[in-house]
Amino acid sequence: MSKKLFLLLSLITLSVSLCMAQAQTVIEDFKPSSVNQGGKEFPQVNSEGCVRVQLSAPEAKMVQLDIGAVKYDLTKDENGVWTGESAPQDVGFHYYQLNIDGSSVPDPGSLYFFGAGRWGSGIEIPSDDQEFFALKDVPHGELREVQYFSKSSDKVRRAYIYTPPGYHKDNSKRYPVLYLQHGMGENETGWGNQGHANLIMDNLIAEGKAVPFIIVMENSSVKFERPARNADADSTQSRPKGPMGGFDFAGEFKNVLLNDLIPYVEANYRVIDNSKNRAMAGLSMGGMQTRIITLANPDVFSQVGMFSGGSVSMEDIENAPDFKKNVKLLFISYGSRELENPRRGPWGDPKENTAALKEAGMNTHFYVSEGTAHEWHSWRRSLYQFSQLVFKN
Amino acid sequence: MSKKLFLLLSLITLSVSLCMAQAQTVIEDFKPSSVNQGGKEFPQVNSEGCVRVQLSAPEAKMVQLDIGAVKYDLTKDENGVWTGESAPQDVGFHYYQLNIDGSSVPDPGSLYFFGAGRWGSGIEIPSDDQEFFALKDVPHGELREVQYFSKSSDKVRRAYIYTPPGYHKDNSKRYPVLYLQHGMGENETGWGNQGHANLIMDNLIAEGKAVPFIIVMENSSVKFERPARNADADSTQSRPKGPMGGFDFAGEFKNVLLNDLIPYVEANYRVIDNSKNRAMAGLSMGGMQTRIITLANPDVFSQVGMFSGGSVSMEDIENAPDFKKNVKLLFISYGSRELENPRRGPWGDPKENTAALKEAGMNTHFYVSEGTAHEWHSWRRSLYQFSQLVFKN
Repeated sequence: MSKKLFLLLSLITLSVSLCMAQAQTVIEDFKPSSVNQGGKEFPQVNSEGCVRVQLSAPEAKMVQLDIGAVKYDLTKDENGVWTGESAPQDVGFHYYQLNIDGSSVPDPGSLYFFGAGRWGSGIEIPSDDQEFFALKDVPHGELREVQYFSKSSDKVRRAYIYTPPGYHKDNSKRYPVLYLQHGMGENETGWGNQGHANLIMDNLIAEGKAVPFIIVMENSSVKFERPARNADADSTQSRPKGPMGGFDFAGEFKNVLLNDLIPYVEANYRVIDNSKNRAMAGLSMGGMQTRIITLANPDVFSQVGMFSGGSVSMEDIENAPDFKKNVKLLFISYGSRELENPRRGPWGDPKENTAALKEAGMNTHFYVSEGTAHEWHSWRRSLYQFSQLVFKN
Repeated sequence: MSKKLFLLLSLITLSVSLCMAQAQTVIEDFKPSSVNQGGKEFPQVNSEGCVRVQLSAPEAKMVQLDIGAVKYDLTKDENGVWTGESAPQDVGFHYYQLNIDGSSVPDPGSLYFFGAGRWGSGIEIPSDDQEFFALKDVPHGELREVQYFSKSSDKVRRAYIYTPPGYHKDNSKRYPVLYLQHGMGENETGWGNQGHANLIMDNLIAEGKAVPFIIVMENSSVKFERPARNADADSTQSRPKGPMGGFDFAGEFKNVLLNDLIPYVEANYRVIDNSKNRAMAGLSMGGMQTRIITLANPDVFSQVGMFSGGSVSMEDIENAPDFKKNVKLLFISYGSRELENPRRGPWGDPKENTAALKEAGMNTHFYVSEGTAHEWHSWRRSLYQFSQLVFKN
């Protein structure tokens, strides 16, 4: 056995041992996850954030819960039902899967979400602040599935468009618009399904905390893109791959956004079509795309948000002086657990960068989501904060 | 072994033998299904309509494909990859699942659809006429996810609302509206995801074959109801069960529809709010609900469609004379395979019933979907036919 392999196996053993120790002291207050399929008792979550799954597989040799990059062994009872728990997970939303005798499959108990390049299981670990994206009896906007022809892609593409409550009441009113991007391995359904962007906005608008605006969500991935329904099956195979596989930095998606999507939205929705009322934001890869596209097009977007997706440095500003001049809001955010192990990337420390730009006179905000990592709860909170600042200057 | 058990086992053996015979003569022109997840090679369909699935499960003892109420055994290769085929399936859409060592799970290769009371795998067997629901470069309407407060249910409910192309262009134009119901074990997502109602309408309107109208899709099940996202998790458990479990004949859904949904739609969308411009239709259970609700409320709906969901008899009309007087279109349809083994139900033969009403002076239509059974392709075709007739008299 090589030294490297030995080290790897030791790490795996250590990790599994910790999980098993965890499982022995688990608190027995498990409740079905809020994103289970109707009537399904499992998966469940307890007050520590441990996930318990259960599956009937009488003939299986081994069943595992695969969550947070750790596989937890389940145990089988006399009826062939397998049960097991994970270690505590951070609050918020996590993708996971089950593994039955070597086969990774979705949990038949959960609802399904598009992430990690697939439709698969998700679970919600309750948080103290989850009221901000809860479904309440307030006026609701609409989340519209829209098909439009993209000349850059030479095909019909799908977007989701959130229109705020009252959009169809007053036909003389026009709205600002936010172009909001998902992360790598996700698609245009992410901000609605996992992010609850529509409910975050409905609640903020009901409380008078946000200017009502339209949100446009499109698919900025190349590799993972695929409509969730209908016949347009060959849409992705023919498109060029970006430098990081699914990561299309600023190539085709920039063309789709600037040449097709924005003109479509401005021709078909009551938006205010100037840069003062046009925002771009995104999470992770979507934040990095926002960074590249807005630095290169400060005449198009005056409001910019990057959620766990890099920051803007003084050097960037020197290369793009119009960005400093025209951008009226620059919002940078991270989960606190991300900052514990900073991913500075090529752009330097995001907090220092953002402070330096503020010092230089820009309206910048740096937000930290406490207790969360590179995951959806960081981004829901980021949208909640960003939406209270945007289009107010 | 009892005689009954022996007979049952013989039938199972016969059925499996037929499938295996089928598999031996399978035509090797399999292609990935049009409703696969992006980039997934399996499941596949060949020109005979056989379904081939493939799954890596190195440690599994047995893997099966479960489709059309038959379980087909897969075989394992030296790499632990299981592969197998079904017998030929009817054209159109079918729910299916995989079974790994006794555990029924979704196929990680397919997109997921809500049917049979769960989110699970679906497959599309190509048909000669699939162009009528294909995604084309024509003007597209929108499929809107809408939340509204229902007093009858005392909660926020979800509906999907299709608005035709051009709806937001001319704010003086008002539209007829169709309330369109899914079947048992399905929900408000079915007509969009499996039925492609929006694409059927976009294509018909582009060809000038249908009057543009709004379609409203809500959840008329009790047992299986559950929002696909967000926090409203306890919505179903508290509601009374109908006489057939999930089948809420005309109880709470009637109240939701008449007292909450129609008033919401008429207050918030540009619809023509009279019975002449109000239609109700549905498939299977939704057809039977349409039957009960429209017979009892002929002052509300003048256009009625029942797809594989019963018919209206002369006796019904005698008990509801206003139905005969007010209803301007009665459309009844079935898949031809359903009529081979007629399910007449308590309402008599649907074709004879419909002919008798025509004879009596009603504008009735009886449509048969050739080569399809009690499945979505029958209902897509029914909607395609119905939509060309509705709101024209």
